[in-house]
Amino acid sequence: MSVIDEILVANEVYARTHELRALTPRPARKIAILTCMDTRLSIRTLGLKTGDAHIIRNAGGIVTEDTLRSLVVSHHLLGTEEIMVINHTDCGLMHTSEADLRTRIQNRTGTAAVSPAFFYAFQNIDENVRHQLQKLRTHPWIPESVVVRGFVYDVLTGKLREVKHS
Amino acid sequence: MSVIDEILVANEVYARTHELRALTPRPARKIAILTCMDTRLSIRTLGLKTGDAHIIRNAGGIVTEDTLRSLVVSHHLLGTEEIMVINHTDCGLMHTSEADLRTRIQNRTGTAAVSPAFFYAFQNIDENVRHQLQKLRTHPWIPESVVVRGFVYDVLTGKLREVKHS
Repeated sequence: MSVIDEILVANEVYARTHELRALTPRPARKIAILTCMDTRLSIRTLGLKTGDAHIIRNAGGIVTEDTLRSLVVSHHLLGTEEIMVINHTDCGLMHTSEADLRTRIQNRTGTAAVSPAFFYAFQNIDENVRHQLQKLRTHPWIPESVVVRGFVYDVLTGKLREVKHS
Repeated sequence: MSVIDEILVANEVYARTHELRALTPRPARKIAILTCMDTRLSIRTLGLKTGDAHIIRNAGGIVTEDTLRSLVVSHHLLGTEEIMVINHTDCGLMHTSEADLRTRIQNRTGTAAVSPAFFYAFQNIDENVRHQLQKLRTHPWIPESVVVRGFVYDVLTGKLREVKHS
């Protein structure tokens, strides 16, 4: 049995007592959170519940064309007023480099690929967070009125630490 | 007090009993889930726990260059073997069009933007899911051995429904 088949069985059980029906597509707490796909992250660490926020996740918690798209939709269509960018310690993208990643995957698959053009590997996490904030703060469709703040989540302590704009 | 400040207070409380320290960056159940940023989605509906999966989320649950990047990293670096794509009923991107969205945001901000180039608005959800599966299945860095399956999550019933590859 594949994991997806196990999930389908679990979903059938869940649906018998589906308790999230009353939620709306507009985040109750008017916040969008951009963070990493990492296994160890949970909105529980932020005191948030399902329904409170838009959650946008990719490898690293990086501002890309795609995350900008999501954040623009979140603000302009669905009323979020604050954006929280959260990177985390021990991120897979910190233990590697663009060239290493590309070579490793080309060797595994025996083929090159044009896309993705970048992996967004990084060395300094504070610099990386500041760079994401800058990309948001300079986008013409993220108004000044939207609060944009950046953080590092420590996977060992469970604590957030703020990284100030440069 | 901003919502982010409230979250920082909640995180301090959370960190006192941080119970996720033992988790590893490799998903325990070797699965990556691509879904929407929507408020109403939770891994609880899938019977999953923090630590089980990579969770990748954007507006719509769309396969873009960025989500491909995340999925490639997930499989080749961190050992996931199955990919589940989940779109959902009542998605914000179903109630609009590319042109509508662009016009609306340009009018609100008083300025045009080059990026994002697309919003990935869609009308038919089954077709949309199939299109995402096709983008994954044809990428040179997603091997045939990786299971790729697509679903629609019904926000009213809490149930998943599979959409087969075309």
